[in-house]
Amino acid sequence: MLRSIRLIQRVANFSRLANPHEVNPKVPDWFKSSDYIEPRFIGSEPQQVKEMLKSVEANSLDELVDKIIPKEIRSEAAFQSPDNFPDAITESAMVQHLQSLANKNKIYKNYIGQGFYGTHTPYVILRNVLEDPGWYTSYTPYQAEISQGRLEALLNYQTVITELTGMDVSNASLLDEATAAGEAMFLANSWFEKKKFFVDNHVFPQSIEHIKTKAYYLGIDIVVGDAKTYDFKDADQYCGVLVQSPDNMGEVHDWSDLFKHTLKDAKLLKIIGTDLLSLTINKTPKDQGANVAYGNSQRFGVPMGFGGPHAAFFAVEDEFKRKMPGRIIGISKDANGRSAYRMSLQTREQHIRREKATSNICTAQALLANMAGLYATYHGPQGLQKIANRVNCLARSFAKLAKSLGIVVKEGRIFDTVVLHNTENLQEYLHYNAQINVRKTGQDTIFSFDETHTLQDVEDLFNHLQHFTKKKADFMSVIQKVIPYKSERAPYMQQKVFNSLHSETEMLRYINYLRQKDISLAKSMISLGSCTMKLNPTSFMLPVSFQGFSQLHPFSPLSCTQGYQELTDNVEKWLCDITQMEAVSLMPNSGAQGEYTGLLCIRKYHIMNGQKDRNICLIPISAHGTNPASAVLAGLNVVAVNVIDGYVDLNDLNKKIKENEKSLACMMITYPSTYGVYEDQTKKIIQLIHDHGGLVYMDGANMNAQVGYTSPGYLGADVCHLNLHKTFSIPHGGGGPGLGPIAVNKKLAPYLPGREHSLGSVASSLYSSASIIPIPYSYFGQLGRQGAKKCTAMAMLNANYLMKNLKNDYKVLFTGQNGMCAHEFIIDIRPIKQESGITEEDIAKRLMDYGFHAPTMSFPVPGTLMIEPTESESKSELDRFIEAMKNIKLEIEKVKNGQYDKNDNPLKNAPHTQDQVINSGWNHKYSREEAAFPLPFVMQRGKVWPTVSRINNAFGDRNLICQCPSVSDYQQ
Amino acid sequence: MLRSIRLIQRVANFSRLANPHEVNPKVPDWFKSSDYIEPRFIGSEPQQVKEMLKSVEANSLDELVDKIIPKEIRSEAAFQSPDNFPDAITESAMVQHLQSLANKNKIYKNYIGQGFYGTHTPYVILRNVLEDPGWYTSYTPYQAEISQGRLEALLNYQTVITELTGMDVSNASLLDEATAAGEAMFLANSWFEKKKFFVDNHVFPQSIEHIKTKAYYLGIDIVVGDAKTYDFKDADQYCGVLVQSPDNMGEVHDWSDLFKHTLKDAKLLKIIGTDLLSLTINKTPKDQGANVAYGNSQRFGVPMGFGGPHAAFFAVEDEFKRKMPGRIIGISKDANGRSAYRMSLQTREQHIRREKATSNICTAQALLANMAGLYATYHGPQGLQKIANRVNCLARSFAKLAKSLGIVVKEGRIFDTVVLHNTENLQEYLHYNAQINVRKTGQDTIFSFDETHTLQDVEDLFNHLQHFTKKKADFMSVIQKVIPYKSERAPYMQQKVFNSLHSETEMLRYINYLRQKDISLAKSMISLGSCTMKLNPTSFMLPVSFQGFSQLHPFSPLSCTQGYQELTDNVEKWLCDITQMEAVSLMPNSGAQGEYTGLLCIRKYHIMNGQKDRNICLIPISAHGTNPASAVLAGLNVVAVNVIDGYVDLNDLNKKIKENEKSLACMMITYPSTYGVYEDQTKKIIQLIHDHGGLVYMDGANMNAQVGYTSPGYLGADVCHLNLHKTFSIPHGGGGPGLGPIAVNKKLAPYLPGREHSLGSVASSLYSSASIIPIPYSYFGQLGRQGAKKCTAMAMLNANYLMKNLKNDYKVLFTGQNGMCAHEFIIDIRPIKQESGITEEDIAKRLMDYGFHAPTMSFPVPGTLMIEPTESESKSELDRFIEAMKNIKLEIEKVKNGQYDKNDNPLKNAPHTQDQVINSGWNHKYSREEAAFPLPFVMQRGKVWPTVSRINNAFGDRNLICQCPSVSDYQQ
Ligand SMILES: Cc1ncc(COP(=O)(O)O)c(C=O)c1O
Ligand SMILES: Cc1ncc(COP(=O)(O)O)c(C=O)c1O
Ligand SMILES: O=C([O-])O
Repeated sequence: MLRSIRLIQRVANFSRLANPHEVNPKVPDWFKSSDYIEPRFIGSEPQQVKEMLKSVEANSLDELVDKIIPKEIRSEAAFQSPDNFPDAITESAMVQHLQSLANKNKIYKNYIGQGFYGTHTPYVILRNVLEDPGWYTSYTPYQAEISQGRLEALLNYQTVITELTGMDVSNASLLDEATAAGEAMFLANSWFEKKKFFVDNHVFPQSIEHIKTKAYYLGIDIVVGDAKTYDFKDADQYCGVLVQSPDNMGEVHDWSDLFKHTLKDAKLLKIIGTDLLSLTINKTPKDQGANVAYGNSQRFGVPMGFGGPHAAFFAVEDEFKRKMPGRIIGISKDANGRSAYRMSLQTREQHIRREKATSNICTAQALLANMAGLYATYHGPQGLQKIANRVNCLARSFAKLAKSLGIVVKEGRIFDTVVLHNTENLQEYLHYNAQINVRKTGQDTIFSFDETHTLQDVEDLFNHLQHFTKKKADFMSVIQKVIPYKSERAPYMQQKVFNSLHSETEMLRYINYLRQKDISLAKSMISLGSCTMKLNPTSFMLPVSFQGFSQLHPFSPLSCTQGYQELTDNVEKWLCDITQMEAVSLMPNSGAQGEYTGLLCIRKYHIMNGQKDRNICLIPISAHGTNPASAVLAGLNVVAVNVIDGYVDLNDLNKKIKENEKSLACMMITYPSTYGVYEDQTKKIIQLIHDHGGLVYMDGANMNAQVGYTSPGYLGADVCHLNLHKTFSIPHGGGGPGLGPIAVNKKLAPYLPGREHSLGSVASSLYSSASIIPIPYSYFGQLGRQGAKKCTAMAMLNANYLMKNLKNDYKVLFTGQNGMCAHEFIIDIRPIKQESGITEEDIAKRLMDYGFHAPTMSFPVPGTLMIEPTESESKSELDRFIEAMKNIKLEIEKVKNGQYDKNDNPLKNAPHTQDQVINSGWNHKYSREEAAFPLPFVMQRGKVWPTVSRINNAFGDRNLICQCPSVSDYQQ
Repeated sequence: MLRSIRLIQRVANFSRLANPHEVNPKVPDWFKSSDYIEPRFIGSEPQQVKEMLKSVEANSLDELVDKIIPKEIRSEAAFQSPDNFPDAITESAMVQHLQSLANKNKIYKNYIGQGFYGTHTPYVILRNVLEDPGWYTSYTPYQAEISQGRLEALLNYQTVITELTGMDVSNASLLDEATAAGEAMFLANSWFEKKKFFVDNHVFPQSIEHIKTKAYYLGIDIVVGDAKTYDFKDADQYCGVLVQSPDNMGEVHDWSDLFKHTLKDAKLLKIIGTDLLSLTINKTPKDQGANVAYGNSQRFGVPMGFGGPHAAFFAVEDEFKRKMPGRIIGISKDANGRSAYRMSLQTREQHIRREKATSNICTAQALLANMAGLYATYHGPQGLQKIANRVNCLARSFAKLAKSLGIVVKEGRIFDTVVLHNTENLQEYLHYNAQINVRKTGQDTIFSFDETHTLQDVEDLFNHLQHFTKKKADFMSVIQKVIPYKSERAPYMQQKVFNSLHSETEMLRYINYLRQKDISLAKSMISLGSCTMKLNPTSFMLPVSFQGFSQLHPFSPLSCTQGYQELTDNVEKWLCDITQMEAVSLMPNSGAQGEYTGLLCIRKYHIMNGQKDRNICLIPISAHGTNPASAVLAGLNVVAVNVIDGYVDLNDLNKKIKENEKSLACMMITYPSTYGVYEDQTKKIIQLIHDHGGLVYMDGANMNAQVGYTSPGYLGADVCHLNLHKTFSIPHGGGGPGLGPIAVNKKLAPYLPGREHSLGSVASSLYSSASIIPIPYSYFGQLGRQGAKKCTAMAMLNANYLMKNLKNDYKVLFTGQNGMCAHEFIIDIRPIKQESGITEEDIAKRLMDYGFHAPTMSFPVPGTLMIEPTESESKSELDRFIEAMKNIKLEIEKVKNGQYDKNDNPLKNAPHTQDQVINSGWNHKYSREEAAFPLPFVMQRGKVWPTVSRINNAFGDRNLICQCPSVSDYQQ
């Protein structure tokens, strides 16, 4: 059903990108270009590298690597030749090359619709959000005190969703519309605990396809039928009914009759898929009796990007909020009683609830949700309604014009989509003669209008129709009769924020105001362990904005997508080389979604091999929460395996294998382990699993410790995912977008999406977040074989340098061979807590007073901090961090020895805000200066101020508020 | 000599841009596109406009305008038809249209050189400086306390210049290389007071041409000769000798012999024009005995942009610093004794010294100087040297390769430029067969290499030469023999800032660190009177980055520049319509340069009419300092005319006219006057001047009060300049770029640059800052007739609303008819000072504590503030400003009535920094909260912190430091 799916065959003719003279050893060095990214990407100068090597007692990077990575697991085969992995090319050459690829995509006038629409990204949002590192390099706002900017923006987004859908609570985005539909089905299934689910046959085919995929592995029975005619006598067998409006054929429905009468008392979830723009004039899902509304917000200013990324929305009635998938931003209070934003109800989520989570969502689509929210804010309710009416009038004009030529037009109320019956060959006619792409189903030709279309476009279409039909009619007299529908909506979006930021100046200042509240990589190191917050080079980001990449509809004909084909073929090839695997799917658009997809591969494999009862998934207790959550969604039963001192407990593993001998489906392994060590028993473990008929899934989050030196394939894994938004420089966007492709070996290759025994579909389009694929492409092509390896080695050097310099002050929890860590390490705060009462949270919050983002807190071990500096940080930045951590240790000592009060000290009260320290009534037992400027560099570099003090999470969860107050804080 | 000069003939076929349906009154409103800029550009919502109109007692905008602008001067003729001034088109349509214009420029491989070179703009600088409103919307750093970011960047730039040239002091940029050469000549002339000046004939022709122009009107005698052979027996007749290295033909000279021996004791200024990149390996001008070094910094990361903008540099020996033209950034101390940056030696400049100033420079090229400085910082000394060696090796390889084919190559040491003798038709051959542009002079073909070229390019050229000569030779064996020259330089740029920011992460953070220190339009209103700090819409800015505009060499063949021709023709046409003038020249690239050019026009006119003795220029004492400074540079004698109550004193005017009856050249008038009122006597004054044989120059800085309602042409002026960087949305860039085209009537049209009786040349290329012309183009095309007029009316409404709301607290100095102001107004602080001791400076600095940039201080009247809000500010922003000003008035009252100490009060101590208010030792007679958070909005909006306290200017001027200290503050 996915238009662009082509059966993928490995292309051998991918391009060697580098200019021959640049890699010719006979050409003297001084002729070689100097704009290579490698020295820019690596944070430290050569001199600093030397100093760090000395500090960790290694004579060279090679020696360091030898010390850290066990010999048994080393494999550099894939990096030997530019035929598997390219030589580096320069920044400017890559930008030009990607421009030429973008130009190979043909941007025809587009009326394809079906969930993806042209949109005008307001330029002020384009430049100052999508293209601003202050926004795109920040992390998911776990540390809320230095994330109030994007949290406010996400709350605005949620408010837009609840206001437009009429629902009570919205989440802060899901991955795309198809998975949102799947999540709705899963919610129905787990709420009502019934195994049958009804889907209207006019729902978007990509949504139905994913629902079917998801249901198949969960053993849910999907009935696809016509909800308008189906009698629902068997309603009590269903856990949910999912319909759509406007539907796939453009018809606007009022489902009130079905949901409020026919199914009034049925114990099932009533779900409406919908379109935000249409909701500015049409009846809300809530008013139609829905419990859940979902859809996507792409047409609110987010470029189509050949499928993504964009934010899907998901909103529910109050009753269901605690089972809702995805992040929810809420308003709580800080230590001073002021209101403050943070992620609420986190107890629902995978990182807390693991296999009992409401979904596996971790990275979502924060940046794109923020764009959509800001788009709605910029237009305001009147502006949106004006756009909707205009689109609707264009569509209805076109329908009337077609009728005036004798064409049979599908009847029924429409919003933006017009179906012309019996128009065989019209699609081809328009494509070849007019460079216009439209949709076609059987004998029908379908046109969807959007805000980028003009009346001139309608006239052009009409002129083509006149040629096509060889008939004539009058344009102006027809269109003059079309007037906007009367709105079915009561006033909405009346909050001040949506009614005061309509000038570009005001919007620019609002965006700037929000951005300055947050810590991003533009301000300081973000040493979140397991998150690999490395440089997102500007030259990797530029191509994302190229029209040839950003303006393409994902269901465009293949002939229009040659540029993307080359792009994806090469990235798949390079990912195969890096992982030493056989095949790759770029469909999953987050790490968790990669896990899910990989596990479906495994399940499909067992099913196809007649072993469908293999349904046990072994997961070490140290695994990331997404692992068990994904396993459950894949229909697997999770069995936890113990871990001792950072290593999988082999006894326990053997025991669990034995207990599940027949039903062992697979084991999930993270490598290097979440504890930051290369387990040298990994190969053995993999063998063990294989010996018992299971397959091995490798969580690729820590790929930054493998690239160039070892690989999941070499280690024997059958499938792994890669977080391109960690290892390969896709920026984290404040909580997404992500891209979590999976790589599989020969065994599993046939089950990838789009291949012969496809596991099904896990996204709305084949490449999901296609428009950000140029970023990893640039990573591979600009760093090349040498550079990519060097990044790995430098990541290890930075981590070991940090560890070495902190280990006298903080207990390092685990190390590998030679007492070294991999690319990250864990410090244990539990002993400190015992002695002083100071917790890992106190330290994390105190770091904000020093201008730093905290490392990962209490994962994988409660009471610890996990630190991952990445290769992009310079020695000077690491030294600053060391200085801060050492000073914090001194502060802890003062608490211990009574120089600081046990409760009233800079750590317990951290972080400190401006109004606290600039307060005549300051009465703490330490000074303002100690609070705000604990070290000289804090002021010298420009103090980064947390804008709220420590946030009370429990309060927020008890008193859930997930929408904008009616008057925004921003302007008085 | 300027390659691209074509004799301009008004094109009649400029495009009506708007789509017919969009402007067809028969098409219902709801079909019209909704992405027009107008409602985004105007700050206020319609409801707010109503409220403001009520406040100023007008029923409509039309009525308001009628009240303000005298009937006698109204003329809206030029705005009647889309044939003179276009209908608005949408944002997206304009961006597409400009993309298509850009695509009409042909970006061939370019070796033209001659002062303009391909360069790789580091992407991190491109995105985060050139494309970041935090940088490009800020003003010239007169208010240093909230400008420390760009001041530091400019100091870095100056340091790069002094380090590379070896000179003692550098300014912070001039307009371009040709004008820098002209300034050098002027300095020589005014220092040594002699009328003869020698220019080597191998200086760039565009520099010679401008020197000749400038000299002509100053009565300086230019001798162009061969400095290597000229015997200089008559040396003592010369005020200066100007040579260049590398010269126009690429030869690198060591002028030591000439300057240190031949001219050792001559009383003349020794000037070397030079190339920054070459100086990384070649002997410095200082070491060659120069007193002055100049050149341009374009190839340090600034796109060629068909000529500009980019920053010219100018550096002198210590002795000459107080006569140096242009801004100089220096280090001084703030009120707390901490070092702080500010503009130093301002007493040299036009705004203080008027006709005695060292130059007329006001707006310069700050943004581009910052880019160049950051480029050098990012590469560091080693990086720059590597680039230089590579370029040099490419050039020398090419020379050797050409020789190997038997071509005669010019001898002598070269840097980047190779001259092939006797190669007739080679230029044409390469242009037509290979899409390669090179330079040609007579029988010579000239190739200049730059960092964007690769060895592959050299091989390609070589292959073409083989075809052209029909000979063969071996490539690899030749190039392998080329090795870099030994550097002639001692170590340079050893300061920490140049040796620690080479990774993209570090550079990104440094840029961010600098930006966050400054107030720009992204933070709050900048109500600088006379500066028109209006919105710089993102969609106007995007095209500046389009390759078709940014990558074109200014001396490209006409056939490659069709896009620019359409662009400039239209802009010229529209400027003619707006000014109701006959012809326009886009050559002057600042307002002051516009004045200068316009005055040359007048001088040339008188000369051509046999009245070369008309050399008196009447200027009201209220005029901007650039007026008298420009007049002097144009060879005119300034006679000041009195002003009474804001109006030209007619008695004094008559007297001055009488006194100068025979020699009256012209009068300069600012309209509306610098006092913000429409003088209704203006037409009379103009008549008077005309009656006495003089012409009238109109300073167009206040065009924002005229557009659509009246015009210089209608008022009777003969010539005016327009500050496109005020009225037409070119951002101010923190002190440039600017664009100051002049418009002239029929009488003066023949004297424009490039026309029959051309006045000469005032810039290095015909369109000087060509690449920013898309911005005013967008202004005209996106706002259209209605929008442009509305901007004028709204600017007046905003000014009058502010005035109305402040006039009870502050004395308004002048108003026009009906007690209204035009687009700006002046408040008089002198009475306040008398009563309370609080000065205009105290108020200006105190506004920083409220997060505002001060209005213009003490211009045109000492002891006042001039306020110009522009149409882009919303009522809410104006209300915030009013609230701040009213609260400041309350504070002043407290000083007056003794509630605040006379000296230790928030006004005298303003602005307050973080370390002041977060200091346990706070011992002021008012609270920290009063200091830092005087009103609730200050914290709510995110406090904008001045990073230094009040700066001691006198200290800085006494102790001049204009270079980076050897260890930067930034990182410990
Ligand atoms: C070890 C590990 N696995 C999986 C994931 C999930 O990836 P994503 O957030 O893209 O869903 C993460 C995310 O941080 C992780 O650290
Ligand atoms: C009235 C007036 N004239 C001339 C100028 C000079 O313009 P520029 O700064 O572009 O040289 C200014 C600049 O502020 C001005 O206000
Ligand atoms: O995002 C993480 O949960 O690590």
